[in-house]
Amino acid sequence: MTPEESVVATAVHAWTQNVERADKLFSGLSESQLLKEVAPGRNRLIYLWGHLIAVHDAVLPLMGLGERLHPELDPVFLTEADKTAAVLPSAADLKRYWDEVNGRLLTGFRSFTASSWAEKHTAVSDEDFNTNPLRNRLAVLLSRTNHLSYHLGQAILAPK
Amino acid sequence: MTPEESVVATAVHAWTQNVERADKLFSGLSESQLLKEVAPGRNRLIYLWGHLIAVHDAVLPLMGLGERLHPELDPVFLTEADKTAAVLPSAADLKRYWDEVNGRLLTGFRSFTASSWAEKHTAVSDEDFNTNPLRNRLAVLLSRTNHLSYHLGQAILAPK
Repeated sequence: MTPEESVVATAVHAWTQNVERADKLFSGLSESQLLKEVAPGRNRLIYLWGHLIAVHDAVLPLMGLGERLHPELDPVFLTEADKTAAVLPSAADLKRYWDEVNGRLLTGFRSFTASSWAEKHTAVSDEDFNTNPLRNRLAVLLSRTNHLSYHLGQAILAPK
Repeated sequence: MTPEESVVATAVHAWTQNVERADKLFSGLSESQLLKEVAPGRNRLIYLWGHLIAVHDAVLPLMGLGERLHPELDPVFLTEADKTAAVLPSAADLKRYWDEVNGRLLTGFRSFTASSWAEKHTAVSDEDFNTNPLRNRLAVLLSRTNHLSYHLGQAILAPK
């Protein structure tokens, strides 16, 4: 393994580790457990889970990995705050979306070489990328891994 | 910038962004704000801050960047739970340690090439590293960046 193969494999590994940690935390919860808030008056676990799915889904086009699979989640889990939507997907549906989105992402991530990771993501113009070459695909991966950790730290606080 | 220079610069940038975010969150708090719990019965902000300093300090020897600067923080913020220690450092002391440790780390991180990042960290044996080349310095950086995000997600929940 060359140094550049090693560094990108390490970043993908950190992502999968966090996805697995979240899967373990959320997938085992009942519908009623998912309705618990992480702290009084704060987001419910179901909202955090749906929010992570919507954010991960939006990574597909950002990385050039195709269209989004579940843009219908945005009004429920991304653009609106928790406790706004009248109807939420079931736990079984969320688990299916979660596996589908993360599975599609991982297949794409594993196909990227170090050069592909260093390429610009699709939300940055050629001009801006020339000025700032750190606005690349790897920056998106690391940012979403940190975003996942951020909400995992919150989810763990919910009363059992 | 070659792809390999770009990928490691991106990882260091994600680290510094999160350190800056934490600095903004913790450094502006008064002594009494630092004593607030992130959620009822959970860790206090001062504990999370000290915990992050102790964990970052321990990265220095792991990365081959020299001895720890503040091992005395471990009993207060790492090996023992919050509300165990009788005396805690002042906010001013914590801010000094925080800047000192993260400053030393950043100088080291900026000196590493892609090959240095792909090298083993000091807590893994040559034998284990041969079996698993992902136990490298970059894995430590990404893991500590995620750890920082995890606790930032919690710290943001504390009542103002």
